[in-house]
Amino acid sequence: MIRVAVIGGSGYTGGELLRILSIHSKVEITLVTSREYAGKPISLVHPNLKGILNMNFSQLSLDKIGDKADTVFLALPHKVSLNYVPKLLEMGLQVIDLSADFRLKDPEEYKKWYGIEHPYPDLLKKSVYGLPELHYEELKGAKLIASPGCNATATILALAPVVGNGISADLKFISDVKVSSSEGGMKPREGSHHPERENAIRPYEPEGHRHAAEAEQELSLLAKKPVKVSIVPHAVSSIRGALASAHAWLNDNYDDIEIWKKIAEFYRGRKFIRIIRGGLHPYPDPKYVIGSNFADIGFAQERRIMRLTMFAAIDNLVKGAAGQAVQNFNISRGFNEDEGLRAPPLRPA
Amino acid sequence: MIRVAVIGGSGYTGGELLRILSIHSKVEITLVTSREYAGKPISLVHPNLKGILNMNFSQLSLDKIGDKADTVFLALPHKVSLNYVPKLLEMGLQVIDLSADFRLKDPEEYKKWYGIEHPYPDLLKKSVYGLPELHYEELKGAKLIASPGCNATATILALAPVVGNGISADLKFISDVKVSSSEGGMKPREGSHHPERENAIRPYEPEGHRHAAEAEQELSLLAKKPVKVSIVPHAVSSIRGALASAHAWLNDNYDDIEIWKKIAEFYRGRKFIRIIRGGLHPYPDPKYVIGSNFADIGFAQERRIMRLTMFAAIDNLVKGAAGQAVQNFNISRGFNEDEGLRAPPLRPA
Amino acid sequence: MIRVAVIGGSGYTGGELLRILSIHSKVEITLVTSREYAGKPISLVHPNLKGILNMNFSQLSLDKIGDKADTVFLALPHKVSLNYVPKLLEMGLQVIDLSADFRLKDPEEYKKWYGIEHPYPDLLKKSVYGLPELHYEELKGAKLIASPGCNATATILALAPVVGNGISADLKFISDVKVSSSEGGMKPREGSHHPERENAIRPYEPEGHRHAAEAEQELSLLAKKPVKVSIVPHAVSSIRGALASAHAWLNDNYDDIEIWKKIAEFYRGRKFIRIIRGGLHPYPDPKYVIGSNFADIGFAQERRIMRLTMFAAIDNLVKGAAGQAVQNFNISRGFNEDEGLRAPPLRPA
Amino acid sequence: MIRVAVIGGSGYTGGELLRILSIHSKVEITLVTSREYAGKPISLVHPNLKGILNMNFSQLSLDKIGDKADTVFLALPHKVSLNYVPKLLEMGLQVIDLSADFRLKDPEEYKKWYGIEHPYPDLLKKSVYGLPELHYEELKGAKLIASPGCNATATILALAPVVGNGISADLKFISDVKVSSSEGGMKPREGSHHPERENAIRPYEPEGHRHAAEAEQELSLLAKKPVKVSIVPHAVSSIRGALASAHAWLNDNYDDIEIWKKIAEFYRGRKFIRIIRGGLHPYPDPKYVIGSNFADIGFAQERRIMRLTMFAAIDNLVKGAAGQAVQNFNISRGFNEDEGLRAPPLRPA
Repeated sequence: MIRVAVIGGSGYTGGELLRILSIHSKVEITLVTSREYAGKPISLVHPNLKGILNMNFSQLSLDKIGDKADTVFLALPHKVSLNYVPKLLEMGLQVIDLSADFRLKDPEEYKKWYGIEHPYPDLLKKSVYGLPELHYEELKGAKLIASPGCNATATILALAPVVGNGISADLKFISDVKVSSSEGGMKPREGSHHPERENAIRPYEPEGHRHAAEAEQELSLLAKKPVKVSIVPHAVSSIRGALASAHAWLNDNYDDIEIWKKIAEFYRGRKFIRIIRGGLHPYPDPKYVIGSNFADIGFAQERRIMRLTMFAAIDNLVKGAAGQAVQNFNISRGFNEDEGLRAPPLRPA
Repeated sequence: MIRVAVIGGSGYTGGELLRILSIHSKVEITLVTSREYAGKPISLVHPNLKGILNMNFSQLSLDKIGDKADTVFLALPHKVSLNYVPKLLEMGLQVIDLSADFRLKDPEEYKKWYGIEHPYPDLLKKSVYGLPELHYEELKGAKLIASPGCNATATILALAPVVGNGISADLKFISDVKVSSSEGGMKPREGSHHPERENAIRPYEPEGHRHAAEAEQELSLLAKKPVKVSIVPHAVSSIRGALASAHAWLNDNYDDIEIWKKIAEFYRGRKFIRIIRGGLHPYPDPKYVIGSNFADIGFAQERRIMRLTMFAAIDNLVKGAAGQAVQNFNISRGFNEDEGLRAPPLRPA
Repeated sequence: MIRVAVIGGSGYTGGELLRILSIHSKVEITLVTSREYAGKPISLVHPNLKGILNMNFSQLSLDKIGDKADTVFLALPHKVSLNYVPKLLEMGLQVIDLSADFRLKDPEEYKKWYGIEHPYPDLLKKSVYGLPELHYEELKGAKLIASPGCNATATILALAPVVGNGISADLKFISDVKVSSSEGGMKPREGSHHPERENAIRPYEPEGHRHAAEAEQELSLLAKKPVKVSIVPHAVSSIRGALASAHAWLNDNYDDIEIWKKIAEFYRGRKFIRIIRGGLHPYPDPKYVIGSNFADIGFAQERRIMRLTMFAAIDNLVKGAAGQAVQNFNISRGFNEDEGLRAPPLRPA
Repeated sequence: MIRVAVIGGSGYTGGELLRILSIHSKVEITLVTSREYAGKPISLVHPNLKGILNMNFSQLSLDKIGDKADTVFLALPHKVSLNYVPKLLEMGLQVIDLSADFRLKDPEEYKKWYGIEHPYPDLLKKSVYGLPELHYEELKGAKLIASPGCNATATILALAPVVGNGISADLKFISDVKVSSSEGGMKPREGSHHPERENAIRPYEPEGHRHAAEAEQELSLLAKKPVKVSIVPHAVSSIRGALASAHAWLNDNYDDIEIWKKIAEFYRGRKFIRIIRGGLHPYPDPKYVIGSNFADIGFAQERRIMRLTMFAAIDNLVKGAAGQAVQNFNISRGFNEDEGLRAPPLRPA
């Protein structure tokens, strides 16, 4: 059994990690921290876990973690993770960081998008970008894993087969993402107030969304030349689920079957990728992955004008956050990739 | 491994049985029937199960079932189950029927509420009403289990501690139930059309709802005298979840702690009952049981006028249908009561 | 033209008053106050009013109001209205107060439910309870009108025909109300955070809800003997709309047509009451009154056990707040009752 | 008073026409037809109109219309309108057609997108494309008006200032539209079943959506050279509202204020256009136009890579259908452009 600590356990991502890890057969949850709720029962904040996880939140203390955990999941805000990761690594622990702090390889990019000098540029080189569909081999035995953001995950998974498998397109893409309210985290704000948020179809951060940096990094790596990606997120009414509709102008004409084959080939053997095409539900819809780690991939062409749209549907809290982190953990430890992640999607949901 | 057949696998209840049974460690799903979709992949109808259950639907043929299954789950409409149950039992199979056909012990009652003479009154005596919180012992080894309806489950679980544990009240109750759209099944109708159904707060079948018959049967049994229950369901916007608010006029005054104790005592040791009181979420809300087999029980008194409201929150497709059926199966077979049912509720959902 | 001031114009009720008054042909909006937004454009807070109401919010100053307004609508919290009403009346203005401060006739009751001694018991006698279906005549020329709360409005309108028109019932009622998120006002709270609020079916204030005081006052007046009402509100997913399901145990048996006639007779001539019975939508559903001042009234009997449920569906912000206040204003001024209130309900909505 | 007939009055668009026309001061509704509901009360199908429009549906008979109406609104499916328009015009009536049958000027285009030879190519030349923001002058006195589709309206209004006012961009655009469930009409289908439709984020018709033909026609006219538009609609959870996010790659760099000015200049004097920029709600969201004829226009640039997104938010049933048809009618008749359309948007909604 791997002893696991969850740092920052009182938010949605933390709660989702606990939901998944509580039924993971290789894991013992030994410590869950929360600054605000230290000393209080986890089920106070996460009422779904009542009767399942009978622990209290603890204060974060690095010393204690060393004694209690082999792997630490960090579900902290950006720039806060920075303070803990180096020490945890020094203590010999494995770190799976769900913040953006160790995702970008190039310190200049970090500075450009996050506004501060990265204090540990060396660690950036060592960390593995935890999108298993692209970095499976590097994840084995990894000590520091930077788990991707949800909009980046959806955008990259949608576009990787295009830039990575020889579909000839302009190398600039628009990823129009539709996101659910849980992406905004657990803290009430004016924009998350139910009467204001429900029924919204609302662009947010449509100018310079930070996940574009991750997407450009990963897709350029695959394309072996610079790729430009613009992410335009829109808040819609659902609680869970994100769909990336990544639009490309093609330089060539393809039959649908060719596109399908290139996607299937690109993702061959990847357990959590399902290719959606035809049938009653011919395109991906996050509705059908809710509660699971699946990413459903599909596409639609308008051949008349050589436009290709790639779709990727995920549950933003699972494949877009906690589930992917556990998937990364499983691969790094040599467990089955889907350990703890086998519960099928809920439906209808 | 128990070989299991699901008859009527293409509806929501059937799909939910498949979702749960597909990760049940003691079960092999050998046959899933659907009249409409025979020969077609299960994932065509249940896109959530793509990549999980790679089987086709079969035509229903009693002979084949005998060869292939030890236990049969029937997810068929009322009055259709009647045609199959006796034969399946004769063939030596265990039958877990999710329809209403074998729930009422008194054939007169069946006639009164369902409009036809019950053709197998003897079987009514033999069947066990599958509400494990009331009939745990009888379920052990049971060959015919009649799994309760969702509104009945919520109403009975809300009121059982009142009539069964000495809370002095008028023995007539109003159970005002709020139900989600999945209760109406998978077939589109005018009332289920999204623009008409979303945002509805709509009474339906408020005159003589049939689940009252089950509730009166079970609560009278507990009270050892006739209990009257009126169920008034209301369709609200959610997809999953039901809340029964069962209102009673008390004949005596109680402190809250006394009520709490009587509930706790009544449900002592029952794995899927959680008593909700105080904290950030002081009353049951189906939101926090979604995807799980929990029934959250709570109450509120207006002592000024001696009104007690008992609340029971369930996921109508799990504790209100497929999950409870699997719980019944587990108990009948001597498995852990929560086998296949350990995935925590989703949250937020 | 009547010059109108809206005090407390930045909340949902204030915004709704502005929405209605901006198209009222007999009204000129001369002043809208907001402590938080004074000096800022109204459309900053109410983006729906952009291009319609090109005014700024003002600070509240009693002197200015005297110069600028003939009628003042107060959309302030309970206990805050208390500070302004007497002075505004002294200045000769008409006051329509949407808070609870002048609704209860008996100062003892105010103390009991709101926890403080009422400082102006004389004014309680003079104020008219602004439910026009019960107090039409008194409203004519009224100088102080206390506009009812939404749950009180729905509960009273549902039960008035029972206690007021000779339907023989126990005089204690349970009004199980289903309410939308806009009832909670404009300020974000944990419980109103979209991921927590959407899909909720959540009892709130089920112990001693204050609107019961209004309902008991008004229904006792009608019955000419003490009536007991218990209100149990439940938060459901919609943004607008409230349904009261008011449950009664009858002392006699009635045909449906008799009940229908008694309701129709009771509400004869009342412009905003629609009686719903039969057809495709046989019971009231707030969906079909959204945006309008209608109250849809219906009922369902379970004659087997002499249970009657009365339903009243309203838009909580219109008939439950701002619309009713304008209706009161119209009657008090001798205008058409529906001036400014003629826009039909939206549908689908 | 203009005598108005609504042909096809039982769908959502028909109902919306009735909702608006019933409070239009220059109109008398003399006839409403429905094949399915002829002889039945309008309020049976449109429960919102109970108490407002006390008429029955009639069978469609061309002769009767001639006697009863001056203007006919046709809310019929595509290819059905074709059968009535020429005769109605011959009878001297004004026709406002909400179908697609007379929107495309070029008969070849009609054939290409709708699959049949257009039987009345001459009428195509005479009909006015009823987007008043582009064709105001032509609408005056027009006898045949082809009112645009909702996705076309949103797409064109978003992009017109780009191609029409000198913003230098590639002349191929992707309009990623998010649409509400009422766009699918009133007939229940599998995809509109509430448990399947709610929470969906679902691409539909992403290959060759027909509204692209209208958008290309209108935008090419403005640009005076061929413009390519690809429309990719996505079904999201709301009941009303559509947002077009129209993505463009710029050939030049602009300050935000320049873009803003070009939009403002382009739409100067257009009553139903509101430009949204900055403040609490910095981009258009259909939430704030619900129930009204407004189109809210905004934009976001990612200057780093010269991507411009233009947003247009409308209520799909009002500015996207019935409201725009009435706006066209008003202009054609010389009435105030906003007659019958002055009710502010609902909020929250």
